[in-house]
Amino acid sequence: MESDFLARKQAQTEQEIHPLLRRRWSPRAFASRPVDRATLRRLFEAARWAPSSRNEQPWRFVLATQDAAEAFARLLDCLVEGNRRWAHRAPVLLLGCAKTVFTHNGRPNRHAWYDLGQAMAHLTVQATAEELYVHQMAGFSPEKAREAARVPEGYEPVVMAAIGYLGRPEELPERLREQELAPRSRIPLAEMVYFGQWGRPLPPP
Amino acid sequence: MESDFLARKQAQTEQEIHPLLRRRWSPRAFASRPVDRATLRRLFEAARWAPSSRNEQPWRFVLATQDAAEAFARLLDCLVEGNRRWAHRAPVLLLGCAKTVFTHNGRPNRHAWYDLGQAMAHLTVQATAEELYVHQMAGFSPEKAREAARVPEGYEPVVMAAIGYLGRPEELPERLREQELAPRSRIPLAEMVYFGQWGRPLPPP
Repeated sequence: MESDFLARKQAQTEQEIHPLLRRRWSPRAFASRPVDRATLRRLFEAARWAPSSRNEQPWRFVLATQDAAEAFARLLDCLVEGNRRWAHRAPVLLLGCAKTVFTHNGRPNRHAWYDLGQAMAHLTVQATAEELYVHQMAGFSPEKAREAARVPEGYEPVVMAAIGYLGRPEELPERLREQELAPRSRIPLAEMVYFGQWGRPLPPP
Repeated sequence: MESDFLARKQAQTEQEIHPLLRRRWSPRAFASRPVDRATLRRLFEAARWAPSSRNEQPWRFVLATQDAAEAFARLLDCLVEGNRRWAHRAPVLLLGCAKTVFTHNGRPNRHAWYDLGQAMAHLTVQATAEELYVHQMAGFSPEKAREAARVPEGYEPVVMAAIGYLGRPEELPERLREQELAPRSRIPLAEMVYFGQWGRPLPPP
């Protein structure tokens, strides 16, 4: 059953892609097993080496682990109810923030959110290589997160994430269990990539 | 010499990370070798399976290859002069666009750029697995890019990229050659990740 489940959650790709990308998905059921700190450091090291506009590195992260109960509760409380319902069991919660201006001249960095997205994707690839799963969430209050994590002016709370080892779908409330078991979907390749100009299909290989 | 060069461009990480992330960097010297279309499709398939807010998948790509000379020249012309100088030799140019509103309700998608960043990071990981390199650029004219690629209303040109196999630094103009050989740098891990709240260091492992 378990390997059936994991096989079903692999991306059903039109083309062969690297296993670390094919295996990645965003579960709601996490095991209670903690993530050790050396492993956590490797996740952030992976994020650290993402590319960014002018090498600004506009990403900042605040994390809390279950064993730091007070900090964990503060981050958890920033999530919308629908996310709190399952994320409370993840061993690690994460807040991702973007530095909105360039350090060298104080002007707005249009790519701050974009580059934070890249750093989080790097973190997620490293997590996948460590048998960990990451579930990112837009459903949280940036105002609460700013207060909970003491995010200073000049930085924006952008995203939250739950991180941990995979749990069992059966442990989720019923409605969430269905989502956890549902097949994954994406729009066709032909609707997201064009050749030469918008709307023109990629030539066949 | 060549392997020395590649060793030097690997990320000098504080912690061990996956080789696909350690090897990735953004060169300016590309080999003239073309990228076949099956390989290109795998890059976009990798992007396709990135996570996104509400699974909106707000990323769209327009690419041009050297052999499609007219389309290539149109994209090249969108770059600032400093990027045109080296990017003209890359076998593939790419424009990444973000869909700025949600499809299901037409409301603004705050995470459109963020999610495009994740898709581009996925593409780059797949590229690295294919021995390809990706150099992303903020230095281009979004207005020109909109016209060159016929990007419709509701989508924003966000980023451009050059993609190809690695070339020889000696083939670059002198000033660019120095940049190509320079060591890579990042801010310390301790300045980008905090524990519990902003400014508090990660506990040691």
